[in-house]
Amino acid sequence: MPLSINFCSHCGAKVEQKIPSGETLLRAVCPACQTIHYQNPKIVAGCIPEWEEKILLCRRAIEPRYGKWTLPAGFLEIGETVAQGAMREAFEEACARVDDLVAYALYNLSFIGQVYIMFRGRLIDGSYQPGHESLSVKLFSEDQIPWDNLAFTVVEKTLKKYFKDRKISTKPTHITA
Amino acid sequence: MPLSINFCSHCGAKVEQKIPSGETLLRAVCPACQTIHYQNPKIVAGCIPEWEEKILLCRRAIEPRYGKWTLPAGFLEIGETVAQGAMREAFEEACARVDDLVAYALYNLSFIGQVYIMFRGRLIDGSYQPGHESLSVKLFSEDQIPWDNLAFTVVEKTLKKYFKDRKISTKPTHITA
Repeated sequence: MPLSINFCSHCGAKVEQKIPSGETLLRAVCPACQTIHYQNPKIVAGCIPEWEEKILLCRRAIEPRYGKWTLPAGFLEIGETVAQGAMREAFEEACARVDDLVAYALYNLSFIGQVYIMFRGRLIDGSYQPGHESLSVKLFSEDQIPWDNLAFTVVEKTLKKYFKDRKISTKPTHITA
Repeated sequence: MPLSINFCSHCGAKVEQKIPSGETLLRAVCPACQTIHYQNPKIVAGCIPEWEEKILLCRRAIEPRYGKWTLPAGFLEIGETVAQGAMREAFEEACARVDDLVAYALYNLSFIGQVYIMFRGRLIDGSYQPGHESLSVKLFSEDQIPWDNLAFTVVEKTLKKYFKDRKISTKPTHITA
C-alpha cells in the first residue's frame, strides 16, 4: 500500500486530509498550493515465458519472498505499454527476450492497490540467465513446477490456469477484471 | 502526466533526482528518510452502458473537453476492482447502474501514463440522469452517435470497434495490451 502523504510533494507544505469539493473520498490536500494528491492502484505487468514445452521461472533474490519462484513481473513505468512492461521485466529478471505477447489474465489485488496483467509470451532464442533480482532462472515442464515454493498466490493461479488451458485447443483468456 | 516531485511527501525534505542503486531510471529520492518516490501509470476504468439497441453517453460538464460526449470512465481508486471502478464511474457520471460487465478493450496511452480498461455492460433498469460531472446523459442508437463531438480518441475507437463487433455473432475483445 502507498505510504501516507504528510507533506505536499509540489510545494512542501503540510497537507490536510479532507474531502475535496465535488468528491466523496478523503484526499491529502495542500492548503498552500491547493494540489490534491491522489493515490491510485498500480499495474503489475508480467508474462509466462514459453520455450518448447517448458516455461521460465525466476527464483527471487529480493524481498518479499526471497528464495521463492515467480513469473517475471513488476510495476509498469510511465511511457511503457503494458506489454512493453512485461517484456522489460522478463529481461531485467531473467535476461530473457520475449515476443508474441498475448494478454492472458487480469487479477485485481484491490486490498493492496495492485492490478496484475499477465501475458503469454515466447522466448525469442531460448537464452536466459539470472538478472540482479534473481538467484537463478530455470525452464520447468509442468511436472517440475515447484508448487510448494511459488512466491505469490497470483503466480500459482496463473500457472494452474495456464497448464489447464494448454490441454484444450482453444486459447482462453481470463480477463474478467 | 504527474506533477514533478519537489519535496518528500513522507518527511517534507527536498528530494534529489537520482538513479537509485540497482535501478535504471531517475527517481525522486529523499536524502533525509531515503524514501524513493515512484510515479506509475494510472488505470482509467470505463464502460459502454447498453440498453436495448442503444448505448449511454455523457456530455462532459468538466474540463478537459467540456461539452463533448464521452463514455463514463475515470481513475480507478485503491480498494476497487477494475469492474467496480467502471460501475462507480457509470453511477457518478450518469446515475446509471450497470451490471454483467465484460472486459472489452485495453488501450495504452503511454505518453500520458494512462491505461484504459473498457467494459461492455448492461443498464440494470434503463434509468439514468446527469451526475455532477455531466451536463446531460442520453441513449444513442448507432446512427445517432455524435461522432464529431466525442471527447476523446479512445472513446471514438471503442465505439467504432463496438458497433463493428455488434454486427458479428462472436464477441471479440481487444485486450491486446
